[in-house]
Amino acid sequence: MSKLRIIPLGGLDQIGMNITAFEYEDDIIVVDCGLAFPSDDMLGIDLVIPDVSYLEENLDRVRGFFITHGHEDHIGALPYILRKINVPVYGTKLTMALIDGKLEEQGLENTARRKIVTYGQTVTTGSFKVEFIRTNHSIVDAAAFAISCPAGTVVHTGDFKVDYTPVFGDPINLARFAELGQQGVLALLCDSTNAIREGFTMSEKTVGNTIDSIFAENQNSRIIVATFASNVDRVQQIINAAVRYDRKVAVDGRSMTRILSTASEVGYISIPEETLVSLEDIRNFPREKTVLITTGSQGESMASLSRMAASIHRKVTIDPTDVIILSSTPIPGNEKAVAKIINELTAQGAKVIFQDVHVSGHACQEEIKLIYSLCKPKFAIPVHGEYRHRQAQASIAAALGIPRENIFLLEAGDVLEVDEEGASVVDKVQNGRILVDGLGVGDVGNIVLRDRQLLAQHGIIILVSVFQHGTGELLAGPDIITRGFVYVRESEELMEEAQEVAYGTIVSCRSRGIGDWTKIKQEMKDDLSDFLWKRMRRSPMIIPIIMEV
Amino acid sequence: MSKLRIIPLGGLDQIGMNITAFEYEDDIIVVDCGLAFPSDDMLGIDLVIPDVSYLEENLDRVRGFFITHGHEDHIGALPYILRKINVPVYGTKLTMALIDGKLEEQGLENTARRKIVTYGQTVTTGSFKVEFIRTNHSIVDAAAFAISCPAGTVVHTGDFKVDYTPVFGDPINLARFAELGQQGVLALLCDSTNAIREGFTMSEKTVGNTIDSIFAENQNSRIIVATFASNVDRVQQIINAAVRYDRKVAVDGRSMTRILSTASEVGYISIPEETLVSLEDIRNFPREKTVLITTGSQGESMASLSRMAASIHRKVTIDPTDVIILSSTPIPGNEKAVAKIINELTAQGAKVIFQDVHVSGHACQEEIKLIYSLCKPKFAIPVHGEYRHRQAQASIAAALGIPRENIFLLEAGDVLEVDEEGASVVDKVQNGRILVDGLGVGDVGNIVLRDRQLLAQHGIIILVSVFQHGTGELLAGPDIITRGFVYVRESEELMEEAQEVAYGTIVSCRSRGIGDWTKIKQEMKDDLSDFLWKRMRRSPMIIPIIMEV
Repeated sequence: MSKLRIIPLGGLDQIGMNITAFEYEDDIIVVDCGLAFPSDDMLGIDLVIPDVSYLEENLDRVRGFFITHGHEDHIGALPYILRKINVPVYGTKLTMALIDGKLEEQGLENTARRKIVTYGQTVTTGSFKVEFIRTNHSIVDAAAFAISCPAGTVVHTGDFKVDYTPVFGDPINLARFAELGQQGVLALLCDSTNAIREGFTMSEKTVGNTIDSIFAENQNSRIIVATFASNVDRVQQIINAAVRYDRKVAVDGRSMTRILSTASEVGYISIPEETLVSLEDIRNFPREKTVLITTGSQGESMASLSRMAASIHRKVTIDPTDVIILSSTPIPGNEKAVAKIINELTAQGAKVIFQDVHVSGHACQEEIKLIYSLCKPKFAIPVHGEYRHRQAQASIAAALGIPRENIFLLEAGDVLEVDEEGASVVDKVQNGRILVDGLGVGDVGNIVLRDRQLLAQHGIIILVSVFQHGTGELLAGPDIITRGFVYVRESEELMEEAQEVAYGTIVSCRSRGIGDWTKIKQEMKDDLSDFLWKRMRRSPMIIPIIMEV
Repeated sequence: MSKLRIIPLGGLDQIGMNITAFEYEDDIIVVDCGLAFPSDDMLGIDLVIPDVSYLEENLDRVRGFFITHGHEDHIGALPYILRKINVPVYGTKLTMALIDGKLEEQGLENTARRKIVTYGQTVTTGSFKVEFIRTNHSIVDAAAFAISCPAGTVVHTGDFKVDYTPVFGDPINLARFAELGQQGVLALLCDSTNAIREGFTMSEKTVGNTIDSIFAENQNSRIIVATFASNVDRVQQIINAAVRYDRKVAVDGRSMTRILSTASEVGYISIPEETLVSLEDIRNFPREKTVLITTGSQGESMASLSRMAASIHRKVTIDPTDVIILSSTPIPGNEKAVAKIINELTAQGAKVIFQDVHVSGHACQEEIKLIYSLCKPKFAIPVHGEYRHRQAQASIAAALGIPRENIFLLEAGDVLEVDEEGASVVDKVQNGRILVDGLGVGDVGNIVLRDRQLLAQHGIIILVSVFQHGTGELLAGPDIITRGFVYVRESEELMEEAQEVAYGTIVSCRSRGIGDWTKIKQEMKDDLSDFLWKRMRRSPMIIPIIMEV
């Protein structure tokens, strides 16, 4: 009998870009197809998608994409990758509605094949059976998968938490995890995001209680709540509080508006009639009888809340009587942007509430232990999270009695072969990150990024000279043009000296009989670079250009 | 009788760059002279110093700088500003030793006048008397000031916390704050950094206990501790634990080595003989009998710990048996860099302890209430902290009974006139931030920064053409040179098309009789910009250059 091959192509050593292939003989299925947001050194990059060369090379064997839930780090690369690998996509209702939106934006709605799956349903494709199991997360309709093939059954949790009192729908189907455990689970791929946090993640309902208290205490103020657009349950709870306190609700921010209409269409949010009014009409109601729900809780510079804070929002002006709730926690890297918004809003006199109006969507240590204890997997493969998070889950698994040699901290591209007899990494396939910049996919790589970083540091100096073809006589220049180096109008003397240095190089080359343009350009670059370093301790990019006429 | 004028020139609406002038008739004294670290949008900038034009314009009235403690955000701008305003600098022993180091680096040790002051001592200069009062902070020798002039006594806390069990020296002199309160305090300028945190900041000694426990639990491992170099007490506690567990200590990192020798010179750290060995010699001892103390706990890319984590440290190699303690909390903005190091170290198998091995150096809400209750100021002027922090202190002051109209949230440049009769902002003086880039001070401003940001986004395209003077005949070009835009070798077709666009513009201009170079360059820029946006959704900087021969 053959072995199952598990091949993560992303989602390890970074948050985002989740994608894992499962291969059994001639069949490959793929779980998730997410994007990552660019890191700080990826200047000008819009988003990052996984390198799926391995799947392209095995195109005829790929049976489908199975999507755990509708967050960008699990669905965001689909519009790019379906162009090359057009196989069916399986997901729950809201997940698919969000995928639909993305595909429509890219004009792929007529070519991509999509199948909505309900909890408890099993999709059979090739040698694989994939069962969708209900979980809880910070977006509705999240699923775990029980992936079965002749080599055994693997459970992939997706992103999850255990919420015994969810706002919409039922708690995670713990009974099914237990059944699978009884039947025998070969391997568990479990969410590690919160594996360094002790205890249990609180129920989404607790945030509802907090929001209710804030509404109770601030009955004379307009209330503005910023949160993640995709957290439909959070939005539902804000609307519930608004209804309870007899307030009208307006929604702002493109993604918030869009997801609300999607969630309404699939029936996952319930808004009493006459509650929702437009951003224009809400001005006709007394301020203390209104609530605005907006995006921008992460300090995103173009989002609605940022524009309100900076007083450049076209329809909303912050007032000293406003109460603003940030119903979120800054994602690592966004702390300063969030602080900036809080400062700007506070400086306008508004009361900003930003602590303890949020719960995580990911399982903490006790929930991870629960899932392990129910599934009783032979092999543990911590996924979703930085190395330290996955390492923390590995320690939990070990503490629960899984032998260290049965715990695998994989890297992207690793091929883990596994069956009841054992598991080991047997191969490495091509993998990596592809940068998307505007409409360009993959045309910006390390060389271009390094140039952008250099340019960002100390700008650029261009040296242009025109020479007579043949004689090598200098006809014009060297002229100097700079950008991002110094304020030229206040540095004329420096510019003149730099020009003299460049002219000196040309004279010196000529006197030494050097006529090769490449050599002359290199010397111009070196000489000017030395001059500027000694004079200013700066290293701008220097580009000597020689034109021959 | 005249009024006292309080003029903050920095340190508000941002962390860092603390500097405040106090002016009474013909006398001006300045408290602190700090730098700020560049924000993310200040590309290529090394550090930021305050604009002190107001002091320069009143040079003959400035009597001295009074420095509360030796952190960069309180002393870092001195080497730049003393060049222009060479007045005496007053500070406690360690503070002055750190200033000495900075001045020596800049060759100012022979021109700057420095006076070491001890706690309880009062410096009289012009109409001002400045008394140094002992406080506690995350650096030894921190002082608050009681600044007296005929208009009254103002208390400036500097950065402080209340530590009843400090590692070195005595607790904050609460009795003196109480005495001043009895005698009457006109205004209190109090540290706001932790004003949004409830409770009381724990004693530095509690960290010592934690470190001790970690040493007790890891007796078979080498221990590496990263912390802030300036926190001499922290280093003392690490050394104490090392001595207790019979380990040798080596110190790594330039700033750590320097501050340790400075602290030893002034007698603020005590290291038993034969404890300290060099980084080379420590290899001769069993690993489990050694401790390394290093810099880099904030993830600074060039610091010692980063180099260890990235396996590029020349003298230290991380081992799976190592235990690494990050004795710090990430400063906002450094979270991702710190996480990166933890991941790298964890991936090498080391155990990394990064939670709860640190306490803050700043007063939380209960300590702020204590100081207010002792000083009983007529006017409250929250300082040190972002707007939200200062706002939080304002709320505390109001809760303690200070009338709202007596609480001032100042902006840099505000002139607050104050005496027993009242206080009000009467004027605004020049203020701002001066950017230091290499040896250049102030030669990079908003225009240069905006260019660097543009260059960082999508790079640069240079278009060079050579025309015949007089006839306007195109002799060479248009040639295209790009950096940071696309990988040119894989985009030859695009480059050719772009060149054709530029050529088309030249032909079009000629056919319309346009001969003005400025106009032609503008059209080349616009046409190519349109082409690239439509084709790629990118907006590189475009620089058309025309050379005449």
